[in-house]
Amino acid sequence: MRRITTIAFDADDTLWHNENLFEEHHRKYCQLLSEYHDAQTVETTLFRTEMRNLELYGYGVKSFTLSSIETAIKLTDGAIPAEELRRIIDFGKDMLAHPVEVFEGVPEVLQTLSQDYQLILITKGDLRDQERKIAKSGLSQHFEHLEVVSEKNIEDYARLFRKRHIDPAEILMVGNSLKSDILPILELGGSGVHIPYHLTWEHERIEDPPHTHNRFHELKSIAQLPALLISLNS
Amino acid sequence: MRRITTIAFDADDTLWHNENLFEEHHRKYCQLLSEYHDAQTVETTLFRTEMRNLELYGYGVKSFTLSSIETAIKLTDGAIPAEELRRIIDFGKDMLAHPVEVFEGVPEVLQTLSQDYQLILITKGDLRDQERKIAKSGLSQHFEHLEVVSEKNIEDYARLFRKRHIDPAEILMVGNSLKSDILPILELGGSGVHIPYHLTWEHERIEDPPHTHNRFHELKSIAQLPALLISLNS
Repeated sequence: MRRITTIAFDADDTLWHNENLFEEHHRKYCQLLSEYHDAQTVETTLFRTEMRNLELYGYGVKSFTLSSIETAIKLTDGAIPAEELRRIIDFGKDMLAHPVEVFEGVPEVLQTLSQDYQLILITKGDLRDQERKIAKSGLSQHFEHLEVVSEKNIEDYARLFRKRHIDPAEILMVGNSLKSDILPILELGGSGVHIPYHLTWEHERIEDPPHTHNRFHELKSIAQLPALLISLNS
Repeated sequence: MRRITTIAFDADDTLWHNENLFEEHHRKYCQLLSEYHDAQTVETTLFRTEMRNLELYGYGVKSFTLSSIETAIKLTDGAIPAEELRRIIDFGKDMLAHPVEVFEGVPEVLQTLSQDYQLILITKGDLRDQERKIAKSGLSQHFEHLEVVSEKNIEDYARLFRKRHIDPAEILMVGNSLKSDILPILELGGSGVHIPYHLTWEHERIEDPPHTHNRFHELKSIAQLPALLISLNS
């Protein structure tokens, strides 16, 4: 197997908490609509709205906020008072303004690995919001390249690696989403390290991890990454 | 003066129509709120909301839609029915789904210039929306690099040119916004070509074009660009 020279990291829920903010929004949102519908109906309808709007809106908090407003109007047949919709806007602003909570051990691991590997960060979502989170995280100095992409399909990764003149076979991608971070890299001939987060958005869920794939690895914590790399490259 | 090797183009209102869609939204929006307030009050309040949200939201249609909803709630003291807010969401979706109307002559000019210059496209706004417009425009094959940025300050341009290993003194930037496209480039030692669009968003307006600056040029149409470059580089 080719020697790994580059480690690519996903950001949200891989280097810092993110999905917990969405969960908190969901909780407050279901509460807001609880006089109209049960939480399950609210969740299902919101998810359908998000999926219908995904191509047009893309990922991120602003898209989520717009879909939340649209869903609330639909679920109440327009009966929801504007002031309650205003609260949904405020939920979104709170998410955007929230501090970035970097996982324990991440700065040390990046510091260690950056001595022997080219590190790049590849995150999908809203440009302004992702750039702000990268800045707030205090981690940007560890990365050679910071890439905010609108989607994480095989074609998107292939284009990005071509642009950076990196052979996918030399890349190890680290992330919490099998669908967005791991499977495309394996398909391109690279290696993947899955580090699950305790929450996964329904859109990112897949049934079967590729446990038998010889370039697939699963870790409980990012702190185990340096040891894995030593074993892979020895 | 240094020979120009790279031409950087702004996109919205430089290569294709954009501000006209926002104007159309403004017209429908003022109409929607006309039973509550006169158009001038609506416009002023919307602009203030947008400016207050700019740091958090960034540019683009989704940000504009969210600020439009927030302003409508504020201006009606929460009395606006949810169904009317739903119409504001639809205005935004219409803008995102709108065809891209490339200016006359643009493909030919890019084709001509790409034979002698490295062309790059630098556009600010929402990542997904700008990528979609670039794709819809059918112009991407003329550009060596396509850059979507969240802001167009001097520091943002300097970082981008460093990343691409381009000396600003060899760059000619073409755009409709003096503030975002022209002044930062002149400051960095490059050249700027201002091609005004018939509409300018208030946030992009500045009082005095730098007419006496020896690296500043103003053209009526992009069709005049090849001739300008011949005179500059001869």
